[in-house]
Amino acid sequence: MPTLDFWYEFASTYSYPAAMRVARMAEAAGVTVRWRPFLLGPIFGAQGWNDSPFNIYPAKGRYMWRDLERICEAENLTLRLPPARFPQNGLKAARIALVGESQGWMAEFTRAVYTANFAERRDIADDATLADILCRLDIDTEATIAAANTPENKERLKKQTDEAIARGIFGAPSFTVGDELFWGNDRLEEAIAWVKR
Amino acid sequence: MPTLDFWYEFASTYSYPAAMRVARMAEAAGVTVRWRPFLLGPIFGAQGWNDSPFNIYPAKGRYMWRDLERICEAENLTLRLPPARFPQNGLKAARIALVGESQGWMAEFTRAVYTANFAERRDIADDATLADILCRLDIDTEATIAAANTPENKERLKKQTDEAIARGIFGAPSFTVGDELFWGNDRLEEAIAWVKR
Repeated sequence: MPTLDFWYEFASTYSYPAAMRVARMAEAAGVTVRWRPFLLGPIFGAQGWNDSPFNIYPAKGRYMWRDLERICEAENLTLRLPPARFPQNGLKAARIALVGESQGWMAEFTRAVYTANFAERRDIADDATLADILCRLDIDTEATIAAANTPENKERLKKQTDEAIARGIFGAPSFTVGDELFWGNDRLEEAIAWVKR
Repeated sequence: MPTLDFWYEFASTYSYPAAMRVARMAEAAGVTVRWRPFLLGPIFGAQGWNDSPFNIYPAKGRYMWRDLERICEAENLTLRLPPARFPQNGLKAARIALVGESQGWMAEFTRAVYTANFAERRDIADDATLADILCRLDIDTEATIAAANTPENKERLKKQTDEAIARGIFGAPSFTVGDELFWGNDRLEEAIAWVKR
């Protein structure tokens, strides 16, 4: 099956609706999704930002929250505002998600973290939140957190972020199809169509 | 008929496909368009930018040009890159467009300026380019440029930009329906649907 790479950051607001619909839409189109968590922090930092652009530029931030409300309403997704914090620190969740790739629960864990953040107003950097999510998914919490914290797994997330930068990614969610880049939840349809060209 | 306010800046790249399709799409939906040129310069300046964010942030800029290519291809719009300059200075064109509102040629003039910029690689701040566009549209060049440069008309453009800021507009194109704001060419369909709610 042809493949769509889905690049997401757990702190990213527009990655929430994208993460909740990408599997369903890709499956309907006969396209395989490769889930690729990465970190926006180093990318924003290189642009001189030490906070979310939605906080740095208030008009853009106000618009984003309203736009996200409209999108979630249209998608029947629960959105409870404001979140526990914004932006959240998605580092731990991203490391855990990578552990799930070979074990088959990466997509499900990813959706559960976005739900915790945007529908349940929980702090996704909190170890208790992450342990609770793993437990509810019947995943071995202790072994998984240990695997997430190995030097090899930490390095893997760094390399994935380096690859995102090399691919020209500057925001999340992004989709890549070969060398073609699509940025934003609202480009998902176009990215899937590109896979099928 | 219900109304959609279309806010555009002549320097804005994504305003090109929006300007070329907004009238057709609104008409098909039975919606009236109010064309509202404004200036992004003061808005960007207030954020500390003295250039286009697409120049300040190169990865975002590279993506934008490729994305615009894909959009124009899908819309059957000619796009010749790079333009004569980027960003262009749209001040004079915006003042002229306002003169056309009461004379019924604002939309046609707007589309002709975008075509000159993005399909013909002309400098839209050049008096000769603007005179040529007016002439080809059978508009009295001298009287129009005189009317564009009156203090009242200059003030009108300033007030329109102030209203854009007051409405929370931070980029172009934008669409407003009452107090509801939609940002980006890719939100046109949603904005039209909002008018008809």
